Amino acid sequence: MKSAIEQLEEKGTAAKAASRRMAYLSTEVKNQALRNISDDLLAKKTEILAANEIDYQDAEASGMDTAMLDRLMLNSDRLEGIARDVLAVAALPDPVGEVFDMRTLPNDLLLGRKRVPLGVIGAMYESRPNVTIDISVICLKSGNAVILRGGKEALHSNCALASVVQDAATRAGVPEGAIQFIENTDRALVNHLLKMNDTIDLFIPRGGAELIKFISENATMPVISGGIGVCHTYVDRSADVAKAVAIVFNAKVQRPTVCNALDTLLVHADIAQNYLPMVAAELAGVGVEMHCDERALSILKPDSSLKLAPATDEDWGKEFLALVAAVKVVDSLDEALEHIERYGSGHSEAILTENYSAATRFLNEVDAACVYVNASTRFTDGGQFGLGAEVGISTQKMHARGPLGVKELTTYKWIIFGNGQVRP
Amino acid sequence: MKSAIEQLEEKGTAAKAASRRMAYLSTEVKNQALRNISDDLLAKKTEILAANEIDYQDAEASGMDTAMLDRLMLNSDRLEGIARDVLAVAALPDPVGEVFDMRTLPNDLLLGRKRVPLGVIGAMYESRPNVTIDISVICLKSGNAVILRGGKEALHSNCALASVVQDAATRAGVPEGAIQFIENTDRALVNHLLKMNDTIDLFIPRGGAELIKFISENATMPVISGGIGVCHTYVDRSADVAKAVAIVFNAKVQRPTVCNALDTLLVHADIAQNYLPMVAAELAGVGVEMHCDERALSILKPDSSLKLAPATDEDWGKEFLALVAAVKVVDSLDEALEHIERYGSGHSEAILTENYSAATRFLNEVDAACVYVNASTRFTDGGQFGLGAEVGISTQKMHARGPLGVKELTTYKWIIFGNGQVRP
Repeated sequence: MKSAIEQLEEKGTAAKAASRRMAYLSTEVKNQALRNISDDLLAKKTEILAANEIDYQDAEASGMDTAMLDRLMLNSDRLEGIARDVLAVAALPDPVGEVFDMRTLPNDLLLGRKRVPLGVIGAMYESRPNVTIDISVICLKSGNAVILRGGKEALHSNCALASVVQDAATRAGVPEGAIQFIENTDRALVNHLLKMNDTIDLFIPRGGAELIKFISENATMPVISGGIGVCHTYVDRSADVAKAVAIVFNAKVQRPTVCNALDTLLVHADIAQNYLPMVAAELAGVGVEMHCDERALSILKPDSSLKLAPATDEDWGKEFLALVAAVKVVDSLDEALEHIERYGSGHSEAILTENYSAATRFLNEVDAACVYVNASTRFTDGGQFGLGAEVGISTQKMHARGPLGVKELTTYKWIIFGNGQVRP
Repeated sequence: MKSAIEQLEEKGTAAKAASRRMAYLSTEVKNQALRNISDDLLAKKTEILAANEIDYQDAEASGMDTAMLDRLMLNSDRLEGIARDVLAVAALPDPVGEVFDMRTLPNDLLLGRKRVPLGVIGAMYESRPNVTIDISVICLKSGNAVILRGGKEALHSNCALASVVQDAATRAGVPEGAIQFIENTDRALVNHLLKMNDTIDLFIPRGGAELIKFISENATMPVISGGIGVCHTYVDRSADVAKAVAIVFNAKVQRPTVCNALDTLLVHADIAQNYLPMVAAELAGVGVEMHCDERALSILKPDSSLKLAPATDEDWGKEFLALVAAVKVVDSLDEALEHIERYGSGHSEAILTENYSAATRFLNEVDAACVYVNASTRFTDGGQFGLGAEVGISTQKMHARGPLGVKELTTYKWIIFGNGQVRP
């Protein structure tokens, strides 16, 4: 009998073999596979939900908290939503095969770059079973083979979903082996998986900070991960106050547990006296706690309905992922830029201003994946940006920055058409 | 007095501070800096050559071999060549500031990607002093600050050249600190440098396999390196024999010591009897040693003027960097593709054929940075590809593949222009 490691290696070999054919699979076959997946998710709803029910019962019995249980849970509505999302990916343009920078050189060599898949993507993720579908379909669309390793708590759901994806894809003509699912959730196998840089071209962790850190530190292949989003919004002296209240409220409150939510509010001293009490009242209305520097505190203190605390050094550069914001009054755009440079994590940063030059300087000088003028940082998202789908948000500078859509899971190769050229 | 580590940290901090301003430096300032460098290389020729003479004498006295001495040596001609190359970089289009994928979303957000520099590039290289200029000017053009660490044997030359570059750049308005040169060649400092991932965004090793391996294994920031080029040329059954002799001769012989030179020649069985003796005679004429599989050996054996040896397992997938080629007869295009997939290093691969479908399959199915039809793999080079300059050739798939020009030393940021948008 084969050992678990041998079985894992076989999955790697099979994915790599499939990836060679995936690289030039026609758009129509890939889209048919996606349409099949969407159909089958609905057709096999009963089995999928039954499998999910087992996971849910087990998790509930083991005392999983409500938020985690909610992430784990599938129901008819959610499954229909997932099926619709798959069709949306089918409708995206195929990134593979695009040829760019094509030109004829003086020696008559015709050369250019052709967009090709990366090869084999490894993905490890936590409780949400929908990630099995998300990552599979994005990899399919971008012509990559994929090796999926989901969380133990969602094993029955993930097995059911992976089997739907595999069947649906193979039926459309996708090479067998293109979508590999690791049923064995033994943690030791993950260590082996992360050393398989001969077969896996890129590893994507999807989950909490601990998972991401573990994978970044142990993977021997490239890793793209969002990491931390410490997002600042700077309210300039020339901000439109009403817009600035609405935007900051949205950035902090609309979904506080995600990476593109506001963490630190920077307010220009000239506008702070007017602006801060207005925004603070709105934020306090939904329970936001404000960790204020001395000047912000002295402005807001008189209003006893606010949840205020003096900011400590740890508040700057902290990703709160909760209804908490750090607040600081600054004397200039320069001070705001310096604060962001020092404490930002290169994710999403915004300036709210009606001043043209301030907006321009902010756009030029802030070094982050996404730089906004007069909008909420909550827009940093593949769907919102029109990429159709995303596997995550990159805060690194190499390869891809910001939301990672299907195009970001590709690379290119140079293709050169000669007619006997030799180098002089 | 400051320790060497403190001085190194200071260089890092200064480079990072400069890089923030470099990011939006005008094209004209950058090009003026490049023209100044070109002028100064000629104006300060006497000092530069005197400094190089010291290095050369020292190296000769220490028994350095002729090839290394030649790499170290500068003379009037070479310096003029370098100065011309700098002007060529000045003439390239500025990659920074290009805005792409710009569009207005249904909610009236205007968003797109703007090309920006990576930030701070670290570079470590060996004996050739011209690399000091090459890397400085490519970093300048692409708006990156740079920290240079050259080889001990070229220290006087590199100091003189770095000082020319720094003066010329500052005179044009490039922020001071943008070009840092490490005079202290203590190897322990390199270990510290490779841990400075807070200040250095990308590290580029230029040199032998040992240097590249050391840096890839020890750097905590991303590294782009060419690594190994195991290049195959497959002579298809439908090849034009005369072209195939000329191309293979060029690929092996024109400069055998570099990564894009031919290593393994694969020949279709149907053409081998005719083709192999012709190409072997040419190759033997300049002293090429051929390590042949059994079938190739039996075809070539009758010609006693050839330098033949039976191929061993180590010959497949070996980068020879010398006048040696491995030779194998294959029965089909499929066998050639499988051999390349197994043994290639993803650098440059070529098919020589007059058959359209064979050419198409090869282009589609070979997974390498550069895939050729009917041309010599020796063309894989930034200058030859029309990129104007290169810092190396990437065999990795992430970020950039093949020759790395100025554009490949950039990234992008998303810029988003709102007018009060919040996420629903």
